[in-house]
Amino acid sequence: MDVVTDIIAWKRDGHELDAARIEAFVGGVVEGSVPAYQASALLMAMVLRGLSDAETVALARAMVASGKTLDLSAVRRPVLDKHSSGGVGDKVTLVLAPLVASCGAVFGKMSGRGLGHTGGTLDKLESIPGFKVQLPQGEFLRQLERIGVAVVSQSERLVPADRILYALRDVTGTVEEDGLIAASIMSKKVASGTAALVLDIKVGKGAFLKDLEHARDLARRCRLIGDAFGRPVSCVFTAMDAPLGRAVGNRLEVEEAWDVLRGEGPADVGEVSLVIAGMLLALSDLGVDEAEGRRRAEAAIADGRAAEHFERWCYVQGGTWKPGEFHRLAGLEVRAPRAGFVGAADALRIGQTAQLAGAGRRTVDDRIDPAAGVVLARVAGDEVDAGDLLATVYARDAGRRARAAAVLETAFTLADGPSPKGDVVLGRG
Amino acid sequence: MDVVTDIIAWKRDGHELDAARIEAFVGGVVEGSVPAYQASALLMAMVLRGLSDAETVALARAMVASGKTLDLSAVRRPVLDKHSSGGVGDKVTLVLAPLVASCGAVFGKMSGRGLGHTGGTLDKLESIPGFKVQLPQGEFLRQLERIGVAVVSQSERLVPADRILYALRDVTGTVEEDGLIAASIMSKKVASGTAALVLDIKVGKGAFLKDLEHARDLARRCRLIGDAFGRPVSCVFTAMDAPLGRAVGNRLEVEEAWDVLRGEGPADVGEVSLVIAGMLLALSDLGVDEAEGRRRAEAAIADGRAAEHFERWCYVQGGTWKPGEFHRLAGLEVRAPRAGFVGAADALRIGQTAQLAGAGRRTVDDRIDPAAGVVLARVAGDEVDAGDLLATVYARDAGRRARAAAVLETAFTLADGPSPKGDVVLGRG
Repeated sequence: MDVVTDIIAWKRDGHELDAARIEAFVGGVVEGSVPAYQASALLMAMVLRGLSDAETVALARAMVASGKTLDLSAVRRPVLDKHSSGGVGDKVTLVLAPLVASCGAVFGKMSGRGLGHTGGTLDKLESIPGFKVQLPQGEFLRQLERIGVAVVSQSERLVPADRILYALRDVTGTVEEDGLIAASIMSKKVASGTAALVLDIKVGKGAFLKDLEHARDLARRCRLIGDAFGRPVSCVFTAMDAPLGRAVGNRLEVEEAWDVLRGEGPADVGEVSLVIAGMLLALSDLGVDEAEGRRRAEAAIADGRAAEHFERWCYVQGGTWKPGEFHRLAGLEVRAPRAGFVGAADALRIGQTAQLAGAGRRTVDDRIDPAAGVVLARVAGDEVDAGDLLATVYARDAGRRARAAAVLETAFTLADGPSPKGDVVLGRG
Repeated sequence: MDVVTDIIAWKRDGHELDAARIEAFVGGVVEGSVPAYQASALLMAMVLRGLSDAETVALARAMVASGKTLDLSAVRRPVLDKHSSGGVGDKVTLVLAPLVASCGAVFGKMSGRGLGHTGGTLDKLESIPGFKVQLPQGEFLRQLERIGVAVVSQSERLVPADRILYALRDVTGTVEEDGLIAASIMSKKVASGTAALVLDIKVGKGAFLKDLEHARDLARRCRLIGDAFGRPVSCVFTAMDAPLGRAVGNRLEVEEAWDVLRGEGPADVGEVSLVIAGMLLALSDLGVDEAEGRRRAEAAIADGRAAEHFERWCYVQGGTWKPGEFHRLAGLEVRAPRAGFVGAADALRIGQTAQLAGAGRRTVDDRIDPAAGVVLARVAGDEVDAGDLLATVYARDAGRRARAAAVLETAFTLADGPSPKGDVVLGRG
């Protein structure tokens, strides 16, 4: 029996793995001496036995150590970041990045692409003509120094263990364990040089996490890892039963983010953005608390600095930002079959609709259509008459539109009376 | 998410897998569409969630269906078999096969080779010069018809699923689940045409199963599978804290089996052989109960028919059986360091000693030395003076002898008073 088999059996039998065993496992996975079938057996044992706090931190450490780490000290300021656990219509990063920078803090993000029913920030930014998400490291640093904001694609050399393990978890039913999730999120943030992080954990039918209790445990573990590396983490729980805002789809979401940056746009996107902006500014070196941070963010939106900073950011990162100017696709409307109150606009189904329309990928090799997506005309709680517009799906050809609209129709439920509108911010953890 | 990932997640979440899902998994493993990393994740979920009775039977069915099955109906008699869960010094098959045949029943076995600290019946038979364990199927059938006994090597074409899954379980910490073990044992017996089976489940420090309760569950599951295929299974639990008998090592064990067949040899080997012979004869078509079966087996030993049948068996299967005539290796003696009572002769350590001496394999590619092994001079409960011989290890060179003897010394504990001698037969299940 070899060392790895002993490690697997140890965890299988409910014992705690020490840091040395976890390092041996992660190191072996990356160098290829631990085959995938042993890794997946251990991952399943981890999912069913659960990871302790100490195991969670040790796993994050081993994952950070598996690759290069980025040194952002040349920026000479704490580089802030926000991570979302993934939702439909989540364009908060697009608002937050220039908003926080316009308030004098530094926001730097290495982001991933969207897969499945949730979108990715990189895809959204690339819907702006010319916007470059692949920057050499030196340029990333200079841009942070110069304008306080940069969002780029993840380097392949950071946390190779996460790429390997995540691909394996995805096909072996071993995604759902808080320690594994926390180590995956936090190892990438630590390796990419994030000084402080706000974690936006989506909770609800359209999110990975269905209940607040689970979200609290994930938040606690991420803070634990952050503490171990001296990187403060603040967490906020936000609702993801319905999409955030009204636009779902890459360019459509950028347009909505632009509205929010100018004090317009949907209230829920604005509220989440302001709450997180306050939290981030409180984590920065500006010496403000969260309330003051939020006040400054509100002021930056009100006096136009936030929108101006968005324009500057696009320009510096190579993009040509012309609001409302893009190749609009034909739309197919979904209307209310009867009078009533919109009971729910199901985030998962609307995410699937947008994906079918061409806004998202089914596999990593799929090409996306930047202008495709869904715009909601009504949201939960709205009263409608029979025949009123509920939503429009935009897609390049009639077939896609029809297939997407068929799913979109199932996303709405109509009730006889109004349901109470819930808060978008559910709590802090 | 593909079908297999759904199956894994279903089991991970504690649900029962239906026969269709289990067939999809086993079929996919054999045809290669289910990669090893998915198989091992599901195996770990099975180990930690446990298999239900229905899952156990469905798994055995799917495994049987994964390859060819042997039709023994040409023998026109029920072909009996005995399976041991694996112990040290377990030469019972060598006694039982000719004993049962000499009583008029048919004993046919497809056997495997030894690995690790337990020996394999094929290796023991091959220590007889000329003995052929690889027979074409037709010859196997004709030999069963002609002399009522044949022991041959397993066909690669029977239960390919077991070969693949067992190799994977061995390196992924997923061996220890009663349903998986039962399905592995029984699928091979069913596929090889066994009409009725006695299962000898070894319990104790030198066995895979450490306690009787666990053994009872394994027995129950094997009977369950047997019932599902109309193949009666009787189970006996026998002690495996110390080796069975006094000889451990291939040719050394054949010699001891020969002694037992002539009414000599260690009492424990004789007792286990007679108990199982009675059980097997009761499962045959001779119309006898177990007590009468045992009486007939005792008579066959007493009047020389059993030993004669062993000689005939060896002759027919190509072997030249000359008792006591083999190339004897030099021995290294281990003696009692002080006076006292032998408290235990640890089966695991003695098995390891024999393996180090050259009697066993560490990996499947190792060659074994037929004459190597250990002979115990004293067993648990015996009184010794300082300097009395405890055991002798036989190996081809001085280095092996010394390394093996160093382990052999740790196998004995000496106590100040006698410990009660336990029964070798612990119960039925």
